[in-house]
Amino acid sequence: MQNFVFENPTKIIFGKGQIPKIGKETFRFGKKALLVYGMGSIYKNGIYDQVTDSLKKAGVGCIDFPGVKSNPVLSHVQKGIELARHEKADVIVAVGGGSVIDAAKTISAGVNANHDVWDFFTFSKTITGALPVLTVVTVSASASEMNAGAVVTNEDGCRKYCIVSPFIQPKVSILDPTVLFSLSPEYSAYSAVDVITHMLEGYFNNTASASPLQDRLVESLMKTVMESTDIIMKEPDNYNARANMMWSAILGFNGLTTAGLGKVIMPAHMIEHSLSAIYNIAHGAGLSIVTPAWMSWALDTKEERLAKFAREIFQVKGARLRLAAEKGIACLKLWFESIGSPVSLKAVNIPESDIEAIAQNAFALSQVWRYDGYTKDVITQILSNAC
Amino acid sequence: MQNFVFENPTKIIFGKGQIPKIGKETFRFGKKALLVYGMGSIYKNGIYDQVTDSLKKAGVGCIDFPGVKSNPVLSHVQKGIELARHEKADVIVAVGGGSVIDAAKTISAGVNANHDVWDFFTFSKTITGALPVLTVVTVSASASEMNAGAVVTNEDGCRKYCIVSPFIQPKVSILDPTVLFSLSPEYSAYSAVDVITHMLEGYFNNTASASPLQDRLVESLMKTVMESTDIIMKEPDNYNARANMMWSAILGFNGLTTAGLGKVIMPAHMIEHSLSAIYNIAHGAGLSIVTPAWMSWALDTKEERLAKFAREIFQVKGARLRLAAEKGIACLKLWFESIGSPVSLKAVNIPESDIEAIAQNAFALSQVWRYDGYTKDVITQILSNAC
Repeated sequence: MQNFVFENPTKIIFGKGQIPKIGKETFRFGKKALLVYGMGSIYKNGIYDQVTDSLKKAGVGCIDFPGVKSNPVLSHVQKGIELARHEKADVIVAVGGGSVIDAAKTISAGVNANHDVWDFFTFSKTITGALPVLTVVTVSASASEMNAGAVVTNEDGCRKYCIVSPFIQPKVSILDPTVLFSLSPEYSAYSAVDVITHMLEGYFNNTASASPLQDRLVESLMKTVMESTDIIMKEPDNYNARANMMWSAILGFNGLTTAGLGKVIMPAHMIEHSLSAIYNIAHGAGLSIVTPAWMSWALDTKEERLAKFAREIFQVKGARLRLAAEKGIACLKLWFESIGSPVSLKAVNIPESDIEAIAQNAFALSQVWRYDGYTKDVITQILSNAC
Repeated sequence: MQNFVFENPTKIIFGKGQIPKIGKETFRFGKKALLVYGMGSIYKNGIYDQVTDSLKKAGVGCIDFPGVKSNPVLSHVQKGIELARHEKADVIVAVGGGSVIDAAKTISAGVNANHDVWDFFTFSKTITGALPVLTVVTVSASASEMNAGAVVTNEDGCRKYCIVSPFIQPKVSILDPTVLFSLSPEYSAYSAVDVITHMLEGYFNNTASASPLQDRLVESLMKTVMESTDIIMKEPDNYNARANMMWSAILGFNGLTTAGLGKVIMPAHMIEHSLSAIYNIAHGAGLSIVTPAWMSWALDTKEERLAKFAREIFQVKGARLRLAAEKGIACLKLWFESIGSPVSLKAVNIPESDIEAIAQNAFALSQVWRYDGYTKDVITQILSNAC
């Protein structure tokens, strides 16, 4: 186990009927909130009213900033920063899933910066402060509600990059599993894929002998996510399944499962960023294409890990490592397909002839993230496995 | 899964060579530290020098308060409170295991209270503030370094009671697994028993259908603790085994494994408090006596849980619930014995004739903690199982 620092101060308020607590919690941090949300689904399901009523009752003023799309874009975030400055917002409340929360976090970092917020994403500037962010979660996948990261796409060059800073980590996040009852089967599936891939990427950075605990934690979470998702596909309003999924999504990417693993690289996420940046497909859909393709590419170098994954998660039997590893990848693809998430580029209408351009885009990010070894050739090989 | 709030802001700095960071971390919270520690083992192993050098370099003044014993007593803690007041300490640094950290937390709560600190333990007063506490951990078992609890024994009536408050939770804890290399086999074993019992008591509050995730997390941690302890017994300086144990100890009792389980009761801990309060035996030794005795008593009401425990932890086979449950208890006792922790009152020279007095003591605590159903008769039955 390698040295690590673990610090995760976000307060999680979890369960049915908890959303009306947002006002009182927000009041601890500010008196004028920028309310960041998406395309208006929260008007229909009543969450908008619950949140704004609660803020009003607590004496928190509220400026609406709607319109965050999946794969949030820089130009929209910049408008949010201008609005927050103009209205002198002193706190940000995000109501949505990962895209909304990431947009809110980026706005929080940008408000007091004297340069373009994109400079944080290229690491040419460092975040030194941010407005406090609170969240009400409506899609559970990114764990952005309890971590320090945010992902935004710069339309100039289709660059989907990220920032990480303790300053932007939410102070409080409210998670009510009943909110997920109305989430579509597609997005329920994409959420599961995202959560599983967060954990899998960590898992493949580990070596079992050093950190058996982290392996077991990931396996526990992965089994729970798959089992819960299988239930959700049949019973979208199964409370315990949604609740187990919602809490697993957080624990899978809040620092817990990677503590002690040293530098963790996430190549499937890196390559997927190019897919969703260029084609605006759902992040989870992109991941179910890229992750098995990466695993096939890694068969030679990660054979033992892949076999362990196959045995633990899919009860693959037999002594031969290579065969077990291959079966594990096949089982994962089948499971992704079974919940309705695509496993090939073709399934989302991306032609093989685009691979070079995608690889070029992903390679640019691999240089920003300093993922040594992920050359354009390597990325091309991985993407070719997804054809 | 029941509603819950999870908030655990302690910063964990984990790994070899990290102790010299204590000065800089302490300086963030105060300029004059009360240094709380035990019976002087930290003089011998060099930790005292590392800590005081680091505090000095960081410009933090330091008042020594040594002498905390296992099962820390109220009269000593009261002296610490007086010293902290007299010296106007503004921060507390605990260097030790659970006893030292609990003493430090209690002092932190008592310094600014205008009444006896014991009033917090009987719940007749509520903690409304405390000096900041930082810890350097030298025995890993209680998880006190990352939770909000503290246990102290009032010599008047041998009352081993506890307080819980976010104000006393450590701000920063430094854990260097190499520090554990010199921990005796006895205390290494008692630590493992304590960690396992923390988790087991939560486990028996769960019902598998509501929170399969929490079951899996506990099973993962329990397997890791047992496997690591088996290695430690043979190789006390095995870094990964000590590190996995050290991190598991925290995760087993920092709120993670019981999130969503509702009110968790810990009857084995409750009864054990009487043993260590009256006879001053090690807490872990008391737990390895009481826990299996409690499990045997619970055979009728928790048969299914006990069988699940047996199957998951000890790979007990066979369809019959009762038989599996009984085998699980037997396996746990054998494992406790295998690492050198006692499993009967006789093994620590407590005569059967004392059971009534112990039960009377434990019943008083069950009333403070409001553990309905734990009458003197019930506690007597449980203790009788330990003969």
